[in-house]
Amino acid sequence: MKDLVGRPGSVSGLVLRLGQCAFAASAIGVMVGALGFSTFTAFCYLIASMGLQVLWSFGLACLDIYALTRKRDLQNPILVSLFVVGDWVTATLTLAAACSSAGIIVLYSRDLGFCKDQHHLPCKKFQISVAFAFITWALTAISSHVMFWILLASV
Amino acid sequence: MKDLVGRPGSVSGLVLRLGQCAFAASAIGVMVGALGFSTFTAFCYLIASMGLQVLWSFGLACLDIYALTRKRDLQNPILVSLFVVGDWVTATLTLAAACSSAGIIVLYSRDLGFCKDQHHLPCKKFQISVAFAFITWALTAISSHVMFWILLASV
Repeated sequence: MKDLVGRPGSVSGLVLRLGQCAFAASAIGVMVGALGFSTFTAFCYLIASMGLQVLWSFGLACLDIYALTRKRDLQNPILVSLFVVGDWVTATLTLAAACSSAGIIVLYSRDLGFCKDQHHLPCKKFQISVAFAFITWALTAISSHVMFWILLASV
Repeated sequence: MKDLVGRPGSVSGLVLRLGQCAFAASAIGVMVGALGFSTFTAFCYLIASMGLQVLWSFGLACLDIYALTRKRDLQNPILVSLFVVGDWVTATLTLAAACSSAGIIVLYSRDLGFCKDQHHLPCKKFQISVAFAFITWALTAISSHVMFWILLASV
């Protein structure tokens, strides 16, 4: 499991964490730039959840940089267990936020046709933000699985 | 790990599967009984996802009954890996369906106040159905974690 892509303390792991961080921050940025987002509880929750994801991923990216520069090994079972739990929690919260926002977007654009009729609604921005949230979830799910395999191999 | 509550082929495992099955079926029943649910894509997806959950949980409940009556052991790594993947997939789909429907319900009842103003909307039924979906997800997440621990102990 020493060569697993995305393992903590490796370049691929760092890229994965920076990707999560970048997409989560982009989701927040696009959503905040969409006029009237604050009237939707789900979109506010998306921002909160993406904020937590940014903090978690940024923290682990810093740890990866530390491990890479000091050539430290981060693959001990206690640390990996912590990463598994953290990734599982943030992945669940991210999926919940992305899905609740996606439910509203599908309702507005497909079921009610509001996006066609009401041009003041920034539907495109809402959609882009949710797409970024789903990409963040996919990247966190990959991290979570890599950690799971490392944990499985280390016991 | 032989005494873990909820393990496959045990009475507690059977109860867990039957619980998932019952709550998923109740979620479908309540949603189908709510007038006009079919105009919401998210609610239709909830029914599809809960249908898949019923099939999966019912299948595993039958397997548990078979193992209990014939006194067979279901805890071999290949079978448990299959259960882990299946539980993980169904739990993710259930959470996605519950959250997308919950997003719409929060929008209607809290953000727009439609549930107060438009009395023809069966908001209570929608809410009960989504609550059942969340309980189904919680039970599936428990199953998924139990399987994960069994897999961890068997390697």
